[in-house]
Amino acid sequence: MIEPRVPSGTRDLLPAQAIARDRLLSVFRSTFEGHGFVPIDTPVLERREVLYAKGGDEIQRQIYEVAQRGQRLEDSDLALRFDLTVPLARYMAAHVSDVGVPFKRYHIGLVFRGERAQRGRYREFYQCDFDIVGSRSVVADAEVAEIIHDGLRAAGIPAFTVRLNDRRVLDGLLAHFGLLAHRSAVLRVLDKWDKVGRDGVARELAALRGADNQPLVPHDVAEQLLQQLDQLRKNDNASVLAALRELLAGHETASQGLTRLEEVLALLEAAELDGATFRIDPSLARGLDYYTGIIFETTVDGYESFGAVAAGGRYDDLAGLFTSIELPGVGASFGVDRLLALMAEAGWLQPQAATAPVLLVNFPGGDVRVYFRLAHRLRQAGIGCEIFPDPRPLRDQLGYASSRGYRFALIIGPDELAQGTFALRNLQTRQQQRDLPLSELVDRVRAALAEGNRLRTDPAERGGGKNG
Amino acid sequence: MIEPRVPSGTRDLLPAQAIARDRLLSVFRSTFEGHGFVPIDTPVLERREVLYAKGGDEIQRQIYEVAQRGQRLEDSDLALRFDLTVPLARYMAAHVSDVGVPFKRYHIGLVFRGERAQRGRYREFYQCDFDIVGSRSVVADAEVAEIIHDGLRAAGIPAFTVRLNDRRVLDGLLAHFGLLAHRSAVLRVLDKWDKVGRDGVARELAALRGADNQPLVPHDVAEQLLQQLDQLRKNDNASVLAALRELLAGHETASQGLTRLEEVLALLEAAELDGATFRIDPSLARGLDYYTGIIFETTVDGYESFGAVAAGGRYDDLAGLFTSIELPGVGASFGVDRLLALMAEAGWLQPQAATAPVLLVNFPGGDVRVYFRLAHRLRQAGIGCEIFPDPRPLRDQLGYASSRGYRFALIIGPDELAQGTFALRNLQTRQQQRDLPLSELVDRVRAALAEGNRLRTDPAERGGGKNG
Repeated sequence: MIEPRVPSGTRDLLPAQAIARDRLLSVFRSTFEGHGFVPIDTPVLERREVLYAKGGDEIQRQIYEVAQRGQRLEDSDLALRFDLTVPLARYMAAHVSDVGVPFKRYHIGLVFRGERAQRGRYREFYQCDFDIVGSRSVVADAEVAEIIHDGLRAAGIPAFTVRLNDRRVLDGLLAHFGLLAHRSAVLRVLDKWDKVGRDGVARELAALRGADNQPLVPHDVAEQLLQQLDQLRKNDNASVLAALRELLAGHETASQGLTRLEEVLALLEAAELDGATFRIDPSLARGLDYYTGIIFETTVDGYESFGAVAAGGRYDDLAGLFTSIELPGVGASFGVDRLLALMAEAGWLQPQAATAPVLLVNFPGGDVRVYFRLAHRLRQAGIGCEIFPDPRPLRDQLGYASSRGYRFALIIGPDELAQGTFALRNLQTRQQQRDLPLSELVDRVRAALAEGNRLRTDPAERGGGKNG
Repeated sequence: MIEPRVPSGTRDLLPAQAIARDRLLSVFRSTFEGHGFVPIDTPVLERREVLYAKGGDEIQRQIYEVAQRGQRLEDSDLALRFDLTVPLARYMAAHVSDVGVPFKRYHIGLVFRGERAQRGRYREFYQCDFDIVGSRSVVADAEVAEIIHDGLRAAGIPAFTVRLNDRRVLDGLLAHFGLLAHRSAVLRVLDKWDKVGRDGVARELAALRGADNQPLVPHDVAEQLLQQLDQLRKNDNASVLAALRELLAGHETASQGLTRLEEVLALLEAAELDGATFRIDPSLARGLDYYTGIIFETTVDGYESFGAVAAGGRYDDLAGLFTSIELPGVGASFGVDRLLALMAEAGWLQPQAATAPVLLVNFPGGDVRVYFRLAHRLRQAGIGCEIFPDPRPLRDQLGYASSRGYRFALIIGPDELAQGTFALRNLQTRQQQRDLPLSELVDRVRAALAEGNRLRTDPAERGGGKNG
């Protein structure tokens, strides 16, 4: 017999987990569509040439290659995509004349990475990306931040912080401290501030060495940079912007970056968003090399240790590998699996393993035809309803319904059939209404469900506070 | 520069195609949940041992194997799933104590097959399965047929035929004609009746040869069998059942099969379903070896040449490869891509490339902050709204909105801003209401959308008749 286990680094989802994920994805989908974003899809299988083009980093070594059974890997050109950004670039190069620009797309899809298996990291997982391609407008930058807000609010996250920076401001800072030549290395270290703290960053900056084994960042320069950033990180947006204006007065593109950040904050303020704090953080770097303008990173208040649940930024040239058409854009991505893990830990997910509210008991000695007719009527009225398949003892069927989270059991035994009545059992309170007329079935069930809804706390209350 | 094309046998979806597919999947999801089915998920990557267990047929040769970049295929145990049934079997063996039985699950997911590339066949495609595992009840059989009905009706298919048979009846027929020993070979041929016709089936039966190169099915036996089936195929359900009762009187399991078909028809009648014809077809075979009871196959009336859009059946032992627990069940699958192709051909899809109804024009010289505030208000009222990212000429923005299928453009230029008014342009009729007070924005837009909805034909009318 074959062991029924999944490959290392993958997992099955039980119904309650699948329901929670589907709901979260559906919330994000509605958010995107409310902003006029349209869905696209691309194949999971891409040509290796497309995926290998960017070469060099960690993710490249994690790509999965594919060949048909009996074929050799060398005789196939297939691989599994590792993100949705490379496919977007290829897609825009192939279809820009069909879709036009500006193009606002979202894409929810599986991606694959051969990461070492560890808790909370999977080798296949969903990404949930949205981008506005073909515009350099501040409206697009602000809308991406706004969607991060709208999506997390709709998902029931009570409070979160969106940190903002602009790559041009960072470059200005690096130039100011004479570090622009070592940009990539320094940004990679700054990116770890939240993880390793100021002292950790100082250590790692000191450890950066050039080809001659000399420190890339002199000790006193590192100290000045960190002191500056540390102070800025603690200030409010207006003070940060003012301080940076002064510090970077001579640096033109940095000033443009500051203006952009100001404008984005003004638009977000105009939209009167709640639950979110938007905070300028001049130490925010976002490792990816291709960002060139604004960058975002979002953590849930009180759950910062989970890391970013939404992040992104602006880029100048999305699809340069595939087309000579210049496609600037801005976008971000929700971390679906991370957010679900966080919500579970915070107690913000209502664990639920049922999708329909009513179980129609298959009463031993009852009439299944009547059950079929009534169930169909309930469904036509928009009320989900399952008929238990087998005429097992009532106790078994009620146990099945309760353990799965059904809200009501509908009981129509031989006596009820003879009298044209039914009984309705609330599976939470265990109260049972008897002798209700079958002719009023739909109305009575609907009323009971509505009453139940009124008694439940609303989602906002459920979410209540960081300490859940 | 790299050519931005997808691998042979795969495709990108443009927004209108992705919207249509998402809507269809969402319709099926709601249908399943209305019947109390819960979603599960399993990884796309499975261990080869799990997928190779069933060995032997066409699909096995089409499996894709996977290895991490730099690794050899022989050093990996990964492959891509080719259906959702083997994963369900593995899942039930692994989790039956968590999920319990009866277990009603649906699963929508990508599957991969290295088929030769041809029109309408893809190497990765969605399957959309639903099963009731752990029950032998007629209620489960009838519910699967009912869900095929409910799903296709909800998808807007005006009329379709669900053909039903029972493997035990087929076996009785084969036994009656002395052909039970050649069951698999004969059923495979009978399965092609719709494609190749009676004469084609006769030819293929004649061509079946044993190890001794003698015909498996003597000519006169084949003629009798086909004459019998041909006549039965033309009769109504009651006559077919009566004729089979007589013919198979001495065959006990065949009689059980007939009783089951009668009971299923009675339950479907009780549910008062519309739009569907349920028809007993004793020639229906369904190639898959593992069906043991009722089988279903559904075609859309007037579009039979597209083949089955939903099919399935009952099995005795889902997970015998993975567990000694016997798990009988019944289920079916919607052919999502085929149905979409059919609906497109029939004109039942409203091509639409927009998800939000309102474009808020980014008027040159206007105030983007005001736009952000108003757009946020519309969205909070449940009205999807996009702000055009750049202050391009009005004509460009209206062109963008019309070509994508936005219904209204909201125009607030400097004059309107000064007067606290807005203009609302119906992009279909090109009528424009001017000087509406901004304080009534949400109500006015909602009223305009509702008015528009009243004027549109409803989906049933749109679908109108087979000749669309």
